[in-house]
Amino acid sequence: MMTGLDIYNPISGEMARVEELLIESIDSELTTLDQAATHLIRAGGKRLRPAFVLLAAKVFADEVEKAIPLATSLELVHMASLVHDDVIDNSELRRGQPTVKNRWGNRISLYTGNYVLAKSLALAAGYRRSDILAVLADASMRICEGEIKQMRSCFNIKQGLKDYLRRIERKTALLIAVSCQLGAMLSDAAAHQVRALERYGYYLGMAFQVTDDILDFVASEEVLGKPVGSDIRQGVITLPAIYALHYGQERDQLGKMLASPLACNRQAEEIISLICDSEGIDYAYHVSNKFAQRARQQLRHLPDRPVKDTLYEIASYISAREY
Amino acid sequence: MMTGLDIYNPISGEMARVEELLIESIDSELTTLDQAATHLIRAGGKRLRPAFVLLAAKVFADEVEKAIPLATSLELVHMASLVHDDVIDNSELRRGQPTVKNRWGNRISLYTGNYVLAKSLALAAGYRRSDILAVLADASMRICEGEIKQMRSCFNIKQGLKDYLRRIERKTALLIAVSCQLGAMLSDAAAHQVRALERYGYYLGMAFQVTDDILDFVASEEVLGKPVGSDIRQGVITLPAIYALHYGQERDQLGKMLASPLACNRQAEEIISLICDSEGIDYAYHVSNKFAQRARQQLRHLPDRPVKDTLYEIASYISAREY
Repeated sequence: MMTGLDIYNPISGEMARVEELLIESIDSELTTLDQAATHLIRAGGKRLRPAFVLLAAKVFADEVEKAIPLATSLELVHMASLVHDDVIDNSELRRGQPTVKNRWGNRISLYTGNYVLAKSLALAAGYRRSDILAVLADASMRICEGEIKQMRSCFNIKQGLKDYLRRIERKTALLIAVSCQLGAMLSDAAAHQVRALERYGYYLGMAFQVTDDILDFVASEEVLGKPVGSDIRQGVITLPAIYALHYGQERDQLGKMLASPLACNRQAEEIISLICDSEGIDYAYHVSNKFAQRARQQLRHLPDRPVKDTLYEIASYISAREY
Repeated sequence: MMTGLDIYNPISGEMARVEELLIESIDSELTTLDQAATHLIRAGGKRLRPAFVLLAAKVFADEVEKAIPLATSLELVHMASLVHDDVIDNSELRRGQPTVKNRWGNRISLYTGNYVLAKSLALAAGYRRSDILAVLADASMRICEGEIKQMRSCFNIKQGLKDYLRRIERKTALLIAVSCQLGAMLSDAAAHQVRALERYGYYLGMAFQVTDDILDFVASEEVLGKPVGSDIRQGVITLPAIYALHYGQERDQLGKMLASPLACNRQAEEIISLICDSEGIDYAYHVSNKFAQRARQQLRHLPDRPVKDTLYEIASYISAREY
């Protein structure tokens, strides 16, 4: 989804090391665990979180090699939450690959998630910096709360914009914010600069998730790596749906359908049409653009270095993704 | 199960604060999460891990108030693993109470476990001591490996003493060892004393788990808070069974039954009789006594303080528990 722009250019060498370290860090003697975790790593992904750790570190230092384990740790935190999400969502595919849950079952998925999370903390603990670990522990806690919120909001047509925003904050923005924050902390940036990068990551993550939720309506299955309309089918009500529920012409009919697990599953295409007919998609793009703009504004607090241009471009690109 | 001895006497004030802090630390705004976690705390338990943190700290200092959050953190780590175990084991009762899984389902259990674990790390992170967090992160990882091992060992009649010991090491001994170790570290004990307390906790934890596994055969449902023979019914092969599989007169018949999930479930009482008829229970008591003895031997490295007598008595008591 980031093909139009190579955000990895300034950090390509370090990202290759992250990929190696991901594999190395899962060297369990337990075959099943090793296979499940390796499957998870090989399934790929955008590696956004490690990229942001490295990019943020690079705002303050040319040499960011020491940030590689921390970058890897952030990807492992993210992966752990994905495995657990798959247990909860009963997903069969992620990024076009069978999920760990689909291949090894719930039990292995649960423990693989726990193991990968513990590994990530052990990697971060290697820095012997309690400030970094405190940020990670706090983020883990808030992400858990977000996961429970997401679960409880399914099929709830009474939720508003605020509920949605708080939900995606925990689901996505928080960990990207923390990635930027920790990268800056590791480069010993000044407190106001750490804060600016954290805000940058936060707004960028919000823009990213809103756009991702739009893509679930409008992209092709090929691009998504999973069926179009997965959210709707599972009763996950995202921004375009919330807009349509409030302002769409057929909002009453839509409300009835979205409140029913059966209708969400069987009449997903009809629901998607109703949402696309409202201006929900355009509205969501507008919201995503606003967040991206705020992300760019944070950059003014940072020193003028080449990597700042990359961060600016990412924020411009993210809300203008093709679909 | 520790009623014959009050190990909490030297630390009763601090333990009361641990109980309060357990409740305070679960102050989530999310009702379900709050209820599930509170249920978990209220279900009680022996609070062994916090007790060992405090007792170990008290070997080197009279005033151990600052160890209270760390003690609470260790109980939360333990609770998180219990909730996840219940998801995996499909247990309906724990300590005579419905499990979180039984009452709220798998999804809430999974996230409650994650949340409680994250909370525990956040509490420990409050000390801003990276050495303490490194020990905790490493222990979490090794505990996960142990959980997967336990799962894969069910119905496996080829396992020997070594497999069993390695399994209970991860399941129980490790976290009790870490509790003792961290308590000593927080009191700034010398390295060799920290090590002695860690070994003490390790051997004590081994003795404790072997005795616990014996109780599953010989105690009453009232004492256990769950049905007698739960392990056998789930195909969990513990020390008395391993002995009987190797040396019992009816070992072939026993082997066939223990390898079959159906027989374990339907003929549990017959299996238990076969194991009790071998000398498996006596042998397990012998092993437990050996571990308790080694635990006591570690104490000679510690300064002579009243709390050392308590630690000595615990080790003497643990392998002589009534049943």
